[in-house]
Amino acid sequence: MLLRMSSLLLRTLRDDPADAEVPSHKLLVRAGYVRRVAPGIYSWLPLGKIALENVTRVVREEMNRMGGQEVLFPALLPREYYETTGRWTEYGDNIFRLKDRKGGDYLLGPTHEELFADMVKGEFSSYKDYPVTLYQIQNKYRDEARPRAGILRGREFLMKDSYSFDLDDDGLKRSYEQHREAYIRTFDRLGLSYKICFATSGAMGGSASEEFLAPTPTGEDAFVNCHHCGYAANAEAVVTPAPAARPLEGLAAQRVLDTPDTPTIESLVSLVNAEYGLNITAADTLKNVVVKVTTPGSDKEETLVIGVPGDREVDFKRLEAALAPGEPAIFEDFHKHPGLVRGYIGPQVLKDLGIRYLVDPRVSTGTSWVTGANEKGKHAVDVVAGRDFVPDGTIEAAEVRAGDACPRCGNELSIDRGIEIGHIFQLGRKYADAAGLDALGPDGKPIRITMGSYGIGVSRALAVIAEQKYDALGLVWPREVAPADVHIVGTGKENQVEVAVQLAEELESRGLRVLVDDRPSVSPGVKFKDAELLGMPTIVVIGRGLGQGVIELRDRATGVKEEIPLAEAAERVLAACRD
Amino acid sequence: MLLRMSSLLLRTLRDDPADAEVPSHKLLVRAGYVRRVAPGIYSWLPLGKIALENVTRVVREEMNRMGGQEVLFPALLPREYYETTGRWTEYGDNIFRLKDRKGGDYLLGPTHEELFADMVKGEFSSYKDYPVTLYQIQNKYRDEARPRAGILRGREFLMKDSYSFDLDDDGLKRSYEQHREAYIRTFDRLGLSYKICFATSGAMGGSASEEFLAPTPTGEDAFVNCHHCGYAANAEAVVTPAPAARPLEGLAAQRVLDTPDTPTIESLVSLVNAEYGLNITAADTLKNVVVKVTTPGSDKEETLVIGVPGDREVDFKRLEAALAPGEPAIFEDFHKHPGLVRGYIGPQVLKDLGIRYLVDPRVSTGTSWVTGANEKGKHAVDVVAGRDFVPDGTIEAAEVRAGDACPRCGNELSIDRGIEIGHIFQLGRKYADAAGLDALGPDGKPIRITMGSYGIGVSRALAVIAEQKYDALGLVWPREVAPADVHIVGTGKENQVEVAVQLAEELESRGLRVLVDDRPSVSPGVKFKDAELLGMPTIVVIGRGLGQGVIELRDRATGVKEEIPLAEAAERVLAACRD
Repeated sequence: MLLRMSSLLLRTLRDDPADAEVPSHKLLVRAGYVRRVAPGIYSWLPLGKIALENVTRVVREEMNRMGGQEVLFPALLPREYYETTGRWTEYGDNIFRLKDRKGGDYLLGPTHEELFADMVKGEFSSYKDYPVTLYQIQNKYRDEARPRAGILRGREFLMKDSYSFDLDDDGLKRSYEQHREAYIRTFDRLGLSYKICFATSGAMGGSASEEFLAPTPTGEDAFVNCHHCGYAANAEAVVTPAPAARPLEGLAAQRVLDTPDTPTIESLVSLVNAEYGLNITAADTLKNVVVKVTTPGSDKEETLVIGVPGDREVDFKRLEAALAPGEPAIFEDFHKHPGLVRGYIGPQVLKDLGIRYLVDPRVSTGTSWVTGANEKGKHAVDVVAGRDFVPDGTIEAAEVRAGDACPRCGNELSIDRGIEIGHIFQLGRKYADAAGLDALGPDGKPIRITMGSYGIGVSRALAVIAEQKYDALGLVWPREVAPADVHIVGTGKENQVEVAVQLAEELESRGLRVLVDDRPSVSPGVKFKDAELLGMPTIVVIGRGLGQGVIELRDRATGVKEEIPLAEAAERVLAACRD
Repeated sequence: MLLRMSSLLLRTLRDDPADAEVPSHKLLVRAGYVRRVAPGIYSWLPLGKIALENVTRVVREEMNRMGGQEVLFPALLPREYYETTGRWTEYGDNIFRLKDRKGGDYLLGPTHEELFADMVKGEFSSYKDYPVTLYQIQNKYRDEARPRAGILRGREFLMKDSYSFDLDDDGLKRSYEQHREAYIRTFDRLGLSYKICFATSGAMGGSASEEFLAPTPTGEDAFVNCHHCGYAANAEAVVTPAPAARPLEGLAAQRVLDTPDTPTIESLVSLVNAEYGLNITAADTLKNVVVKVTTPGSDKEETLVIGVPGDREVDFKRLEAALAPGEPAIFEDFHKHPGLVRGYIGPQVLKDLGIRYLVDPRVSTGTSWVTGANEKGKHAVDVVAGRDFVPDGTIEAAEVRAGDACPRCGNELSIDRGIEIGHIFQLGRKYADAAGLDALGPDGKPIRITMGSYGIGVSRALAVIAEQKYDALGLVWPREVAPADVHIVGTGKENQVEVAVQLAEELESRGLRVLVDDRPSVSPGVKFKDAELLGMPTIVVIGRGLGQGVIELRDRATGVKEEIPLAEAAERVLAACRD
């Protein structure tokens, strides 16, 4: 491949685009890789298309290597497939819906579980056909409420999605592990730095779901990161270490105190410390939050109370993840519940009221708390878990904070930011159930298939590489992703451009992918700036030194420059590019 | 590449799908290449995906070879781009429209002229930047009224569209020629048989537009084909050879005859031959058809009369193509025009009525006709063109029929059927005008860019190859398109499957793309049938002869079978595949 700047559709920009906030967005636009067409919708210019194709190739090679079979589904899909699983409705505003000329309902596929399950059902019938892993690399569509950050969060984006189909849970685990390894190889080849984060807690069935997050300062997703032992997890998946139960004997008896005008935890702590000589912090109080849990599609509703230490908020994303899937929690105005006194709720009466009480794991048996006394203007102290109230169970609903103990090694956790580049998920039988996907077993009985679902954001991965690999001068592509191995700059008024083109042609004939700046009337300064901005890993400058038979070889990433004889140029560049 | 039938997502079908009418549709479904998801919307199974990728690769290589730069536009596009050219409205029901969550209007791109013009405008400014050719290979969407024939006419389909941008008409012609050559190379490599058809008549500016039509008996498009000299054209583009003008002297004078009850040409011919002793055929009569021509977006309306020999109908597609673009002709009920007598219109009075009269080229000066006398129940004979009426011009509006004279060599034309696989078109400045696409010239003045538009239906081309390359047993892929070079069938109860897999692995390691039938419990008959149906160009059977050290090498296309020693198998198969 030989690209000539003199004819390449490329204009670099000196200024950041007005709507760009993150580095990858600024640089990919400035370097002429992408252009905005509409919010969250981008065109790829020639260099961008090549880089995108490079990322795609790596993803495809690793999927093939793990035995994945590539298929291709339509992006335009009839409603009926998404009705079987209820997702036509569930997606709400997040998908693009449309009608055809006959009034039929269609959508633009946001993800293809239903179609894959249906395809396998159509082709396979015997247990001997399994396991199988299928994948596709295809444009996906989501009508994001706030498309942002260029191609990092687009409304049309290129995605690899794959699905494994197994006869049993052990098979699913193997398929999951194979994907995990393929993803590690893929992201390593792409030069990405990433963390594999638990996306569901170990308590709910091992590593049933993990996300590959690329740490970046501007990342949309916060995640919990232990810099000591390497543990990483979504906030939703973090397990709070529970203190061991302590004996109840000898603990002070519960007392009720007058605590007028203490609408907040802070005011309560101040009052009891000042008026009653206590020495507590917010962490010694027990905050009780009333939520309503509904099961979609049924009329079942339940009021729950969640107890967390008073220095922490309930994290509703953690709460929802901790509840059974499909039970969204709704924070409810508690005074609707007779028996619950606004601002003074304590767990002591919940059993009598028939309200289920779930607590943070820190509220273990034998811990003492300051909490509501279920009477206006009164709180109770020395309220002991396991004695004055017995929770119906624990729940991971309290917010996770930097400095909390790592559930694996006990050191302090950080809260870092990152961008999701991959997700692997043991899906189970939900979609097989909806499709009626069975294999005929050796005994003639049907076996319900279990599925895994695995995604890589291909266009996003490209942006994330840009987000992680740049410096003040521009992009710094890893070789596997760079649109070219080498950028040859010819600059000067003698035969420099001519020599640059000759070298470019020789290197191309020897298998390198070459970009040559052969523009006749562009200043050296502009050419150098463009070379830095465009970010090919190796830069060759053929300039003033040519008279002395010398050219310059630069490494874009390290900035190291070296003068080399023209006679050795081809060999030296080849060596640099094949390092 | 090594595909194993034991794990490949593939089920061949013995019966044709109920909705399939054409061979490619039947075979691609039966052989497990594609599956229907909705009308005109298909999924690609693994073998289909590989074949589609092969076609795509050939198209891409030839576009790159001619200097095209690959870009990629979104499929989801905001309305505004298509408003500038009026196509948002013009497309009518033929495009998919949708709204995003904010109510913004979008469409699914049917073709991308506006976007390409806008992209070039954004990047390029100087005349030195031109010419440039850009292309993309991308899913396109059209809401066909009658999607049919599987992937031959789909609603979501893969297309290569490219656009050339030139400073002047000569440049456009060069770009057009380069595309024409690239298309010839592409379709030749794909093993397609095709005709390059004039899509607009030579009279309107040379080969300003040509279609690549693949002749197939079930093709949707009729085209005019000269089997003698190779001339081919759309009916719209066929030029009728005009007889030379003949002297008017000595021709019989016009006479008016009573011709009651002659509502049709046939009844007129019968009557005048029987009653007046003439000996004419329908071809000797002159039929006059009244049409109304309107210019969209203006109130301008004109009534025209079209004169054609009475043995031919007016072909309204030819008529519209022959009129100025944007002037659709509407066949109008003529008795609305005072002075025109229904059933008895003759051209003699048109000049006095101020109605323009355009005639078929056969109505040349000095030809004599039987035509209406502009009086109920009366016709005139010996009405001479150039004497009794003078047409305002000629027009290509009469139907073209098999047996008409070839405009190039004069031999008889055929009307054949074909499928459009490519279209090249000198678009001119319409889209550059809409986008305001100018280059700054050497004199500092703007130069309006002129564009060409060029398309290849990539998924359709695959179907057309299937349509042209099959036999009673199944598909017969050309090697460049086949999902694998060789299909190795292992069949028998000894070690045949094992040997088949060994050979497959060796051939793969030596660079072949291999499909091996290693299914353990499938009968030889089924395996043979599948191999013929799937259509790889070379088939190797490792069966009963293995005990004698002999295997069979088959050529799928010719059916030639040969027994070869196992020891020579790899070399012989390699030779066959690299023929």
